[in-house]
Amino acid sequence: MALKKMILDLDTGIDDSLALAYAVADPNVDLIGIISSYGNTLVTTAAQNSLNLLHLLGADNVPVFIGESHSSTTDHFDVMPISQAIHGKNGVGDVLLATSPQKVSTQSGVDFLIEAAHRYQDELIFIPTGPLTNLTAAIKKDPDVAHLIGNTTLMGGALTVPGNVTPFTEANIHQDPEAADFAFTHQDNLTMVGLDVTLRTLLTKKETAAWRLLGTTAGEKYADLMDFYIDAYDKLNIDKKGAALHDPLAVAVGIDPSYVTTISLAMRVTYDKESGDYGRTIGDKSRLLEPTTTKAAVLVDTQRFVNDFQNLMLSVLNTTKD
Amino acid sequence: MALKKMILDLDTGIDDSLALAYAVADPNVDLIGIISSYGNTLVTTAAQNSLNLLHLLGADNVPVFIGESHSSTTDHFDVMPISQAIHGKNGVGDVLLATSPQKVSTQSGVDFLIEAAHRYQDELIFIPTGPLTNLTAAIKKDPDVAHLIGNTTLMGGALTVPGNVTPFTEANIHQDPEAADFAFTHQDNLTMVGLDVTLRTLLTKKETAAWRLLGTTAGEKYADLMDFYIDAYDKLNIDKKGAALHDPLAVAVGIDPSYVTTISLAMRVTYDKESGDYGRTIGDKSRLLEPTTTKAAVLVDTQRFVNDFQNLMLSVLNTTKD
Repeated sequence: MALKKMILDLDTGIDDSLALAYAVADPNVDLIGIISSYGNTLVTTAAQNSLNLLHLLGADNVPVFIGESHSSTTDHFDVMPISQAIHGKNGVGDVLLATSPQKVSTQSGVDFLIEAAHRYQDELIFIPTGPLTNLTAAIKKDPDVAHLIGNTTLMGGALTVPGNVTPFTEANIHQDPEAADFAFTHQDNLTMVGLDVTLRTLLTKKETAAWRLLGTTAGEKYADLMDFYIDAYDKLNIDKKGAALHDPLAVAVGIDPSYVTTISLAMRVTYDKESGDYGRTIGDKSRLLEPTTTKAAVLVDTQRFVNDFQNLMLSVLNTTKD
Repeated sequence: MALKKMILDLDTGIDDSLALAYAVADPNVDLIGIISSYGNTLVTTAAQNSLNLLHLLGADNVPVFIGESHSSTTDHFDVMPISQAIHGKNGVGDVLLATSPQKVSTQSGVDFLIEAAHRYQDELIFIPTGPLTNLTAAIKKDPDVAHLIGNTTLMGGALTVPGNVTPFTEANIHQDPEAADFAFTHQDNLTMVGLDVTLRTLLTKKETAAWRLLGTTAGEKYADLMDFYIDAYDKLNIDKKGAALHDPLAVAVGIDPSYVTTISLAMRVTYDKESGDYGRTIGDKSRLLEPTTTKAAVLVDTQRFVNDFQNLMLSVLNTTKD
């Protein structure tokens, strides 16, 4: 079987760092590029974090592209204090990473996505784990993108559980609900991996202790950044049982949908600021009887995913032994 | 196989009238009683409507009990104008029904439910199609009820689609969110049949024309009341494609869960009036990792249900030929 081509769209971010490692580690995937986004960090910080993490994992060959620096309805983005509390001021848990010798690509992230959509079509898996600003910008620039990309599996949204910014909205969607609504109503073969499932996949310090025991720089750095995240979840009272594997679950589902149970559901994202439910991902009543290629993950095989995640992490953090 | 015992809890109501007919018609069910509730109509009107409909269908043997007349947090209930617009001033589409020779039972609906829960236990199917006030009153009076009833399948709520009273709340739940939350967090083996699925099961005047063609009084009266409902859906712009089979779908799922796809999900009902999402049925974040016997229906086999519904209706409306 030919390797699937994968593009990650990351606001790197701690759980984005795990998504990156997962994609590098998975033997079924050819990671052809990472587009940067804003959210957990500024877009430029996210890009540099991605370069540094790729370098740490011995994957300097993966190019990194700069995406949109702010939402589709603003002209500026500042990192929210809560994001810094969860991901650290530098986005990777205030862990110092060696600077990659690689530079970001000169092509824009949006143009890279458009080009890859045309080149790989059905073979392309696109995984946005931040706002959907880049995807929507690509579709608006080239509407064919919506029909070309074979599989778009996003981390974001909350359908059957409350949000994590308000009772209605999840952080990635909340950054740019207008762009998210455009993507949800235009992009074919879109699967939403939201809080519904990611809050059921928790990592604890038991797993990160095993990374540390590998005795590699990668193992130590990843354990440090993930422990920062687990501590933040605990301190901020988000979850005292562990930290959610939000972004890597989207990567895993992009490769193997059988990790989750999905329902087919045409969805909208609300973005009327007056309505009280700004940024809600919810079924579109007007399209309930129509066929749709949009899916929402509602159940997850927690044990299988966490086991597989841990094994892939142990493998990628170990093969980079220095 | 022994017949399952079924109790309906109806605020009768046009789609409640269909639920009643469905339960009378289904050969797999022994309808042992109907408890009245408030909502589409006053509790006393609902009880009289149920008696008259049972009489129309030749089912005078089914007793009718009076339940709570208002929500658990109020001391009074008035029918909302929108309910009258949908169900008619008399609750049954302003259709005149012959008055039943039967009277409501002297036992209270809540006591009848408690007694039946003890007597039939696992064999009991309880179908509330209005507010959950009676169920919660029964559990509060006798906590064993929560563990005794084998199967509680309610019509109400909206998980993956917006509500029909506000974007967050569905009409039955909205009547008494406090009682609903109590039921959702106490009642074992609870299945929610909400707008998620009922909005996908529509009836049109094509089907009611077939009822009318039977040439029976029951066929004519049921066609009249259902046409009122279909017209209301059209006029009020609720759905121009047909009228939702809300309540009968709950009866069908209570008997045969395979009509729907459910997800296991521990849920809450929000009832903080300040929160902006009063009356929302939503996953309980604090119990996501715990096992639960609560289920929400998220997909429905529309074609199979509407066909089976129509066949049962044709049968029950025809056997009452006068």
